[in-house]
Formats: sequence, structure tokens, C-alpha cells
Amino acid sequence: MPADPPVAHAGRVTETEIEALRATYEPFTESVRRLVDVAIRTNADAATIAAAKEAVDRVVADLDASATDGPFGVRFSADGQPMAWGNVVIGVRNAVAPPLVVHHEADGSVWTEFELGAAYEGPAGHVHGGVCAMVLDHVLGATAHKPGKPAVTGTLTTRFRRGTRLGCPLRAEAHIDRVEGVKTFVVGRILDPEGVTVEAEGIFLYPRR
Amino acid sequence: MPADPPVAHAGRVTETEIEALRATYEPFTESVRRLVDVAIRTNADAATIAAAKEAVDRVVADLDASATDGPFGVRFSADGQPMAWGNVVIGVRNAVAPPLVVHHEADGSVWTEFELGAAYEGPAGHVHGGVCAMVLDHVLGATAHKPGKPAVTGTLTTRFRRGTRLGCPLRAEAHIDRVEGVKTFVVGRILDPEGVTVEAEGIFLYPRR
Repeated sequence: MPADPPVAHAGRVTETEIEALRATYEPFTESVRRLVDVAIRTNADAATIAAAKEAVDRVVADLDASATDGPFGVRFSADGQPMAWGNVVIGVRNAVAPPLVVHHEADGSVWTEFELGAAYEGPAGHVHGGVCAMVLDHVLGATAHKPGKPAVTGTLTTRFRRGTRLGCPLRAEAHIDRVEGVKTFVVGRILDPEGVTVEAEGIFLYPRR
Repeated sequence: MPADPPVAHAGRVTETEIEALRATYEPFTESVRRLVDVAIRTNADAATIAAAKEAVDRVVADLDASATDGPFGVRFSADGQPMAWGNVVIGVRNAVAPPLVVHHEADGSVWTEFELGAAYEGPAGHVHGGVCAMVLDHVLGATAHKPGKPAVTGTLTTRFRRGTRLGCPLRAEAHIDRVEGVKTFVVGRILDPEGVTVEAEGIFLYPRR
């Protein structure tokens, strides 16, 4: 993981500006998420798909006219809060992200509740094991971040107990097990309504800035 | 991982039908991928985004009229080839998938070359560590699958050596290290133009059917 990631398109926007941007982009991204999902599940005929492609291509052209080159990056609000809106796990402007909302408890533990649909499939009807690993990497890492001092993953070990079903309520949770020098040892898991499906241990580090 | 995944919407389609379906859906999915990407990068104003949302919502409604409930599943061609078109890593109908094309060598090793854009971001300008874990889970697993006998991940250990940049050529590769009873031990890695960024070891199992 990068010791000193470049901050792409850094800028300082006020709380009011952030809310206006969120009100503009969040519902649009939700619509794109629905499109990704239905594009997998539809049985539309070739003519309908061709018309859909044309409509999508027109939208792409409209949005591309004002697009920045390169990724969103991590931008900051005027009070220094990071806006990871392009993030693949939590980004409110990234249709690939479910997006997860990670809650932090006073004891340092974190949790998130979510549901995954057709876009996250691996084995038929089940969440791809790699998606489980991605969620756990993010959620375990969230315990280790400190203000102005993001942690990066050193090692992540994921143990798959059984399949995680698509289309049912899921929960991921993590807490710090111990700290040894520069290493923070974190444990966590994913649960479905019947119990634990995947467990993970991670070692997180604070890179020199 | 599921011992006996349900095969959703199983059906037998001929090679010719598969090619027709691919010709219809693959270019459309590519357009949806471009939309996901530009939706993150655009700086369009509220009116442009509102119009884009309306256009996307219309496409969603058109496609939803003929959509199957639930995920794509794994369908099969008439000669028994699996069509994992909804798969989050390789699915040609899944806009979340890059999609990876995994090549199998005669010695049993596998490799894939790909590039990841704005939709896969974690640390600014870099691939999310969880996406690296997802790619490695899939690519390592690909070494262990046998005809009619898919392998599932038991344990995956991912070691992050340094950041993996977005927007540059990447390669993932894996091979079987050894087989011990029911366990297949696989090693693999991701490389960028400067060398290895992430390494992984996986233990894969063959569930009873």
C-alpha cells in the first residue's frame, strides 16, 4: 500500500457545498447502481438492448465533457474531513460500491449492515469470496485509522466458513485485538442471518508520511 | 463457500445462441462500465446530472420489464460449458467486473492482464487493497478448478508489499504449489510495471456435491 498516496484533485469545500454536491450526485449514483444490477438480470431483446446502449452512450458523452482525468482521489472538506466519494467500498459516487456505511463504536470496534445483489455474485446465488475479502479488508482497516494517520493493510487472512448468500441482510464487524509496536492486529467477520460465514485477521501499519 | 451452490436460471443454450447473446449484451455492458467510470469523474452541474438520472431511470425501467428476479447464476451451454456472465470478476454482463480474462497454461498456471480505473479506488490514486484481494482470490482459485469440480476458497492470505496504481498495466498470476489430501495450496501475485505489489497464498477445497 502506498506510503504517501497522492491526493488527486485536492480541494477544500464547505459543509454546505458538500451537502449540495451530495444531493446532486448521490441519487444519480443510486440510479447507476440500479442500472448495473438490472443489466445483469434483464432478458430484454437485442433491439431493446441496442436502444439502451444508445441512451447510456449519450449520458456518457454528456458527463465526459466535464470529467476530470484520472480517479476521484480523496478530497477534503474545509474542516479536514476526507471525502472518499470515489472509494470502491464506501464511495457515494461509485456505483461499484454497495456502498457500505461503517459505524464506529466508542470502544473502537466498527460494524456495517448491508445487502449484496446480483452484481456481487461468485458461486451461483452467493457472494464472490473475493467480495467478502474486499469488505473485510475495508472494515478491519477502519478500526485502525486515526485522524490524519490512515492505516494501510500489511497482511489480511480470510477464512471462508461457508457460502454468503446474495439478497439477504449481512453484517460485517471488526475490532482491534492488540497492538505490537507498529503493527495493529485486527479481527473481524461477516455474518448472515444464520451466523458467521467468513472470518478475517489483519495486520495494519502506519506508513511514514 | 457453498458446498452445493444452487444453479439459478439453469438452461442449455447452443454455441450459436451464446454468440448472439454475447453480441447483444457485451457492448452494452461496456457502455455501462464507461458510465460507472465517468459518473465518478464528471464535474457536471446539477441540471446535467438530473437529466442524466432521468435518462438512466428510463433505461432501468425498460430493462426491468423483462428482468429475472435474483442474480444471473451460472448457466450452461449445450456442451456443459459454464457461463458465469454475472460474475463480479469475470462476468461479461457485470459492469462491476473489469472483466478479467483468465488464461490457463499447459503447466496448470494461470495469468491475466488488466488495467483498473477510477471505479476501483481505495487510497487516492491507488487500487483498493480489497480489490487486490478479490482479484487474487479469483485468480488463485482458477488454478484449482477441475472440469465439473469447482474449487472453493478455504483460506486466503494476502500480503501487501506496496501500493498498486490505478490506470497502468497490471498482471495477476498464480500456480499450484502443492496438493495435500483434500487441500490444494496455491500461490500468486499482482505485478505492476515496477514489479510485485501484492502476494497471496490460498488453500482451496473441493466440496462434496
